[in-house]
Amino acid sequence: MFTVHVGEADPRFGNMLLEQFGGANGELAAAMQYSVQGINCENMACKDLLMDIGTEELSHLEIIGTLARMHLKPMKKSADAAEHDPLIAIAGGGGVALCNSMGTSWTADYLKITGDLDVDLHSNIAAEARAKIVYERLINFCDDPGTKEALQFLMTREITHMRAFMQALDSLGKGPLSIGIIPPTPDIVDQYYNDSTGQGDQGEVDTTGPWNTQEGISVVEAPALSDFQVLKATPKAGRTTLNNGKARVTPGKTKR
Amino acid sequence: MFTVHVGEADPRFGNMLLEQFGGANGELAAAMQYSVQGINCENMACKDLLMDIGTEELSHLEIIGTLARMHLKPMKKSADAAEHDPLIAIAGGGGVALCNSMGTSWTADYLKITGDLDVDLHSNIAAEARAKIVYERLINFCDDPGTKEALQFLMTREITHMRAFMQALDSLGKGPLSIGIIPPTPDIVDQYYNDSTGQGDQGEVDTTGPWNTQEGISVVEAPALSDFQVLKATPKAGRTTLNNGKARVTPGKTKR
Amino acid sequence: MFTVHVGEADPRFGNMLLEQFGGANGELAAAMQYSVQGINCENMACKDLLMDIGTEELSHLEIIGTLARMHLKPMKKSADAAEHDPLIAIAGGGGVALCNSMGTSWTADYLKITGDLDVDLHSNIAAEARAKIVYERLINFCDDPGTKEALQFLMTREITHMRAFMQALDSLGKGPLSIGIIPPTPDIVDQYYNDSTGQGDQGEVDTTGPWNTQEGISVVEAPALSDFQVLKATPKAGRTTLNNGKARVTPGKTKR
Amino acid sequence: MFTVHVGEADPRFGNMLLEQFGGANGELAAAMQYSVQGINCENMACKDLLMDIGTEELSHLEIIGTLARMHLKPMKKSADAAEHDPLIAIAGGGGVALCNSMGTSWTADYLKITGDLDVDLHSNIAAEARAKIVYERLINFCDDPGTKEALQFLMTREITHMRAFMQALDSLGKGPLSIGIIPPTPDIVDQYYNDSTGQGDQGEVDTTGPWNTQEGISVVEAPALSDFQVLKATPKAGRTTLNNGKARVTPGKTKR
Amino acid sequence: MFTVHVGEADPRFGNMLLEQFGGANGELAAAMQYSVQGINCENMACKDLLMDIGTEELSHLEIIGTLARMHLKPMKKSADAAEHDPLIAIAGGGGVALCNSMGTSWTADYLKITGDLDVDLHSNIAAEARAKIVYERLINFCDDPGTKEALQFLMTREITHMRAFMQALDSLGKGPLSIGIIPPTPDIVDQYYNDSTGQGDQGEVDTTGPWNTQEGISVVEAPALSDFQVLKATPKAGRTTLNNGKARVTPGKTKR
Amino acid sequence: MFTVHVGEADPRFGNMLLEQFGGANGELAAAMQYSVQGINCENMACKDLLMDIGTEELSHLEIIGTLARMHLKPMKKSADAAEHDPLIAIAGGGGVALCNSMGTSWTADYLKITGDLDVDLHSNIAAEARAKIVYERLINFCDDPGTKEALQFLMTREITHMRAFMQALDSLGKGPLSIGIIPPTPDIVDQYYNDSTGQGDQGEVDTTGPWNTQEGISVVEAPALSDFQVLKATPKAGRTTLNNGKARVTPGKTKR
Repeated sequence: MFTVHVGEADPRFGNMLLEQFGGANGELAAAMQYSVQGINCENMACKDLLMDIGTEELSHLEIIGTLARMHLKPMKKSADAAEHDPLIAIAGGGGVALCNSMGTSWTADYLKITGDLDVDLHSNIAAEARAKIVYERLINFCDDPGTKEALQFLMTREITHMRAFMQALDSLGKGPLSIGIIPPTPDIVDQYYNDSTGQGDQGEVDTTGPWNTQEGISVVEAPALSDFQVLKATPKAGRTTLNNGKARVTPGKTKR
Repeated sequence: MFTVHVGEADPRFGNMLLEQFGGANGELAAAMQYSVQGINCENMACKDLLMDIGTEELSHLEIIGTLARMHLKPMKKSADAAEHDPLIAIAGGGGVALCNSMGTSWTADYLKITGDLDVDLHSNIAAEARAKIVYERLINFCDDPGTKEALQFLMTREITHMRAFMQALDSLGKGPLSIGIIPPTPDIVDQYYNDSTGQGDQGEVDTTGPWNTQEGISVVEAPALSDFQVLKATPKAGRTTLNNGKARVTPGKTKR
Repeated sequence: MFTVHVGEADPRFGNMLLEQFGGANGELAAAMQYSVQGINCENMACKDLLMDIGTEELSHLEIIGTLARMHLKPMKKSADAAEHDPLIAIAGGGGVALCNSMGTSWTADYLKITGDLDVDLHSNIAAEARAKIVYERLINFCDDPGTKEALQFLMTREITHMRAFMQALDSLGKGPLSIGIIPPTPDIVDQYYNDSTGQGDQGEVDTTGPWNTQEGISVVEAPALSDFQVLKATPKAGRTTLNNGKARVTPGKTKR
Repeated sequence: MFTVHVGEADPRFGNMLLEQFGGANGELAAAMQYSVQGINCENMACKDLLMDIGTEELSHLEIIGTLARMHLKPMKKSADAAEHDPLIAIAGGGGVALCNSMGTSWTADYLKITGDLDVDLHSNIAAEARAKIVYERLINFCDDPGTKEALQFLMTREITHMRAFMQALDSLGKGPLSIGIIPPTPDIVDQYYNDSTGQGDQGEVDTTGPWNTQEGISVVEAPALSDFQVLKATPKAGRTTLNNGKARVTPGKTKR
Repeated sequence: MFTVHVGEADPRFGNMLLEQFGGANGELAAAMQYSVQGINCENMACKDLLMDIGTEELSHLEIIGTLARMHLKPMKKSADAAEHDPLIAIAGGGGVALCNSMGTSWTADYLKITGDLDVDLHSNIAAEARAKIVYERLINFCDDPGTKEALQFLMTREITHMRAFMQALDSLGKGPLSIGIIPPTPDIVDQYYNDSTGQGDQGEVDTTGPWNTQEGISVVEAPALSDFQVLKATPKAGRTTLNNGKARVTPGKTKR
Repeated sequence: MFTVHVGEADPRFGNMLLEQFGGANGELAAAMQYSVQGINCENMACKDLLMDIGTEELSHLEIIGTLARMHLKPMKKSADAAEHDPLIAIAGGGGVALCNSMGTSWTADYLKITGDLDVDLHSNIAAEARAKIVYERLINFCDDPGTKEALQFLMTREITHMRAFMQALDSLGKGPLSIGIIPPTPDIVDQYYNDSTGQGDQGEVDTTGPWNTQEGISVVEAPALSDFQVLKATPKAGRTTLNNGKARVTPGKTKR
C-alpha cells in the first residue's frame, strides 16, 4: 500500500481530471465496455478476463473520482475556482459528476460492444491505447507530485490491459483480418482507391506506403467521385446502379 | 461498373440498413473519424491514407443511403410499413435520416479521435472490424439478391481498410505496446489482478490464459476490492491513500 | 442461494427488460447515482451507506443484464425476433447493450447528484420509488416464472433501499423542509398561486387540498399570467420589473 | 409588484444563471415535469396542483431568462465577455439559449415522469429540494443586489412547492413505503447487505445507522461480491443461478 | 368551443402522435423556439408576436399531449399494445413523455435561436412549414374522426403562424438576402460551383435551374474537389492555402 | 487560388471556430442536411442542386477544420492554452474534433430533413441565414487578417447558397404558404390569437403589425389560456373538449 499526499487543490486540473472519470475514454467507459462484453461472452476464459479487467476499471473510477473531488472542492466557495467548471460548482457543489471536462454527461454512445468476441477485443485494445495517451497528457499538465504518482499507476495498468487483450485475441487463433464468417470478395479486397487527389501548394503529391505499393494491390484512381455521380441516378424506383470503383474512373482525372 | 437490381422494397430491412447509414459503426462514423484524424495528422503519408479512406467511406454513405431510401419508401403511404419506423414515416416522409435503426440521431460521440497517430490507427482497425461484422449481419437478414450484392461489396472494402490501417501502424515502426512517450512503471505493469473471484453453480473456477500464466506475470488476488475500501477514507482534506494493488489483499480471500 | 430456471427465451420481453439495465431508472443509474454521491459525501456513516447500496445495485446490473441476454439471444439468428430490437440484433448480435427498450443509450443526464447530502437522499428516495414501480410493471408483463422470481427479488430490494435512505435522512435531524442554509422569505413562502384557472367542459372547477386550504396559506389568483406580462417589458437595458405574485393580479380574473 | 434594479451586467454570473434556465434542475425541467405529469394524472385534485405549479414554473423560466439575458448581453461585442460562454456569444449573439452553464442543451432526460401519482410526487419533492440548493449557490456567487432579490424570491417558491407536494403525497393516505401494488418479499426486504467492506488508512471501520441496526434488520456480509461470482456461470443457455445474498458469503471476508 | 369525440384508443397511432408532442418539429419545439427568441428580442412589436405564438404553441402542446395520452393508455395493461412503445408502457405506465415516436427524449438541439431577429424569423417560417407537413402525415395515418378534426385545427394554425412570421420579416424592410451587416464579397457571391459531376446510368447529366443559368452567375466546375486537395498541404505550421474555387480547377475535369 | 497566411495561433479563437466545424449551424450540419435531402429528392434538378451545395459544404468543413487546427495546436503543450478547451487539449491532443465551442459533440438532431422538397428548401434558406450570421460574428472576434479573409470567403458562399435555395423554391411554382396538400381550415386560419396580454412597467401595451391588423384577420383575445383550462377536463376516458380559441375567452380579460 502506498499513500498519496495530494498537495494544494488545483481546480483547473481537477476539471481536466474529469476526462478520466466521466469522459469518452475514461474509467467508467472502460469498466462498462468490458463488463457488458463479459455478460455477452460465451468463451469462459475470455469472460473471466473481461470481468477481471472490468472490475479493476471500476476501482480506478473510484480512485480518479476521489482525486478529482479533492481538486474540485474549492469550487463550492470560490467564484474564481468555479469559473473553471460552473456546472460542478453550481449544480454539484464542488462534487464530482459523471461528465467530462466540458460538462458533457457520460453516455453509453462511447462504448463499443458488438457481441462478437474478436471484434470486441480489437475495440478493447484501441480503448486501452486511448486511455494510456489521455493519462500521459494529464501527467504532463499536472503539478502535484502525489497526484502524478497516482496517474502514473493508473496509466501503467492500461498497458497491462492492452497486452492482455492482445494475448486474448491471439489465443483465439484466427488470422488478423479474419472477422466473422463471410469472406470478402477477391480482387475487390485488393484494390486501393486513391480518392483524395491533387497537388497541394507545397507541391506535395500523393504519398505511398505498404497499403498502396505492396505486391498484389491494384491502385484505382478516384472511384469515390464516380460512385458519387452514379448514385444521383435512376428515376425508376427500385433500381439503381452502383459503381464497383473500377470502370467509371473519369479519364483525365490524373495525379499531378 | 455493375448494376444493382433492387427487387421489392422491404421496409423492415430498410430500417435495419440505417445502422450502416447513421448508426454507431456506420459509414458516416467511418468517414468522419478518418477525415478528422486526417486534418489533425502531421505524417504526410498517413494523412493521405486517412483522406483516401475517409473519402471512400463518404461515397459508401451515399450508396447505403440510396439503398435504404428504396426500402423505406413505402412508409410514406402505408401505416403497416410505417410501424417499422414511425420516425422515418412521419417526420421523414419515408426518406432516410441520419439515425440508426432505433431512431437515435447520429452523434460524434461515436468517434474515436485522439490527435495521436498510432492510437488513432488502433481505433481505426477496431472500427473496421466492427463495420465488417455489422455488414455480415445485415447480409444474413437480407432477402433481396441485389441488395445483398451491394452489401457484400461494402463489407469487402472494410477488410481492405482494416489491412491498410494495420500496414500503416506497422510502418510507424513502434512496438505494439508503445503508446505515447511516458513508459509504464515496471513490476506494476506485469501484475495481473484477479478481481472477479468465486465459484459458479456449474463448479467453474477462475480460468487461465496467456494473460495470467505467461512467464513474468504475477497474479494478485482481488486488489480492486481492497482499493475500494481504502478510498472511503481520510477525513483530512487533501490526503488520501491509494492501494497499489499488492499490499492490501485481504488475507483469507482465496479462490476455490 | 437459489437457482433461477429461465424457460423459453422471449425477445419481446427481453427488450422490455433493458429498461432496468440501461434505462433511466435502471440499475446502472442507481449504482452510479449512489456511488458518485458516496465519493462526494463527507458524512462517514452516510458515505458507507451510499457505497453499500451503490455496490449492491452494481450486482443487480449484472443480474438483469444476464436475464436480458438470455431473452434477447434469439435475435442473432431470427429476423422476426430481431424486429423487437433491431439495434440489439444488428449492432449487438443479440447481446445486451447499455440502452433502454427504445434503443436510447444510457446517459448520466439521468442522475441526480448535487453534492448536498440531504438533497441527495431526497433524490434517492424518489429513485427507489421509480425503480420499484418499473419492476412491478415488468412483473405484470412477464410470462416466465423463473424470470418473475428474479424480478420480485430485485423489486423487494428497492423497498429496502428506499427505507434505508428515509432513515438516513431522518438521522440527519433536520426538518423536512430544511434544505441548505438560506431561509425562504416569510409570507411569500405561504402563498399558493392558482395559476391554472377556468372551467372544464364537465363543469369541474378548481380543486382544493391541504396545499391551498391549510391554515396560514393565502391563495393568490393567477399571478403567473401577470408575471408573464411584466417581463415583456423595459427597453432600458439593465432594468426589469418582477412581479412578486401578489400586486398585479388582474382584477376580474376569477374562478367560476 | 416590486421592481428589480439590475446593476452592471456580469457575464460570468449570467453564464452561471443558465443552470436555472436550461439546466438539469432548472425552471424548464420543473415546468415540464409537473405539466406532463398533470396531463397523465387521473386524480383531479392533484392534476390541478400539478398544473398550477407547472404554470408557475413556466413564469419563473421567463424571469430567469430575462435576468440571464441582461447579464449575458455584453458577450455580443466583447471577446473577453464571450470567453465565459462562446456558444452564447457566437451562436446566440449574447442571447439566452436552453442550455446549462457548460453549453449542454436541455434534454427531457432530466425529467422524472412515471405515470404513477405517488411516485411522481416523490420525484417532485426531490426536484424542489435540488432547485432550492441550486438557487442558494447562485445567491452565494451573486454580487448584484437586484438579481439577488429576484433569486431569493424564486428560491422561496421552491420551498412552497416542496411543501405542497409533501401535503399532496400525505393526502393520498398510503404508507411511506407503499409504492404500487405488489408487496415486497418478507425477510429479504429486511436484510441489509454490507457490500463495501474493509479498513481505511485512518483505521475507520464500517459505520452504523438506523438502516443496519434497527430491530428487525439482519445484516448480511458482502453478498454483492458473491452475486458477482455466481453470474459468470452456466454454459447451458436458458439457465442461470442467482444468489439471494445470504448463502454465498465468502468465509474469511470479515470486517475490521 | 367545439368538442372532440375520440373513439377507440389506437396505441399505434398514439405512438405516432408523440412526434408532435416531444418530437423535433413538435409543439414543445415551437413553443420554446419562439418564447426564447422573444426573451432575446429587442424589437417590441416582434417580441409581442413571438410571445403570442409561443404561448399558443404551449396550449397546443397540452392538446396534443391529451390526445396522445388517450391513445396510449391501453399500453399500461396490454402487452400487445405495449409493443408499439415499450418505453411509454414500462417506464411511463401508459402516460405521455417528452419523447418522439422512437423514444428519443426531446432536446433543445432541435431549436434554432440566434439572437438575430431576421435570421430567427427565417428559422420560424421553416419551422412552421415542417410542423404543417408533419400534421398532414398524421392526418393521413389517422382513422379516428375526432382526432382528425383536432389535428386539422392544429395544422391550420401552423399556416397562420407561417404567414405571420413572413409578414413580420417583410415588416423589417430588409432585402431577402440581407443578413447581418457585413456584405458578401462581390464576384465570389455570383459563382455557382458545380461540385457533383458525372453521368448516371440513365444517361442523365447535370441539370440547370435559375441558380446556375440566371444572368450574372458564372459556373465553376468542381472546385470543391480542388479545395480538398489543397488543404492536405503545408508542413509549415501556421500557413495554409485556401482555394477560392476558381483557379485550381483540374483541367480535363469536364462534364460528360 | 489565393493563399492564407495565418499569423500567430490564437487558441481562444480556435475554440470559437469550432462552432462552424462541429456546431449546430456549422459546415458539417450544412453538408449533411443538403446531401441527405438530395438522396431523398425525386426532383432531378433540385437533387443536383442539393448535391452540389452539399459537396461544397463538405469542402468548407475541411477548410474550417484546418484553420481551427492551426489555432488550437498550442493546447497540446500549454496548460494556459488548454484552459480554453480542455477537451481538445486532453482528449484531442490539440487536434480538432466534431464538437462545438462548448465541447458538445455534433448530433444529427441539428438537421432539418422532412422528405418534402419545398419544406426542405425553406429549412435550407433558414440554415444559410444562420450560417451567415455566425460567420459574421466570428469575423468580428477575429484578429488575424489571414483567418479573416478565409472567413469572409466562406461567409460569402452562404449568401450564394441562400439565393440558390430561394430560386429553387420559386422554381417549384407553388404559393409561399402552400405546404403539402391538405388545405388549412378557412376562418380559423385568419384568426390572430393575442395570447400574451397585460401591461409592462413601462406602460407598454400590445403591439401591432401586419400580422394582426391586415384586412381579413380577426383578433381573438387570449384563447390559449382558455384552451389550457378546458384540457384539464373530462374524467370520462376517450372524450375531451378542445377550444377553437373563440368561444371560451374569459370575460374581463382585457388589454390595458
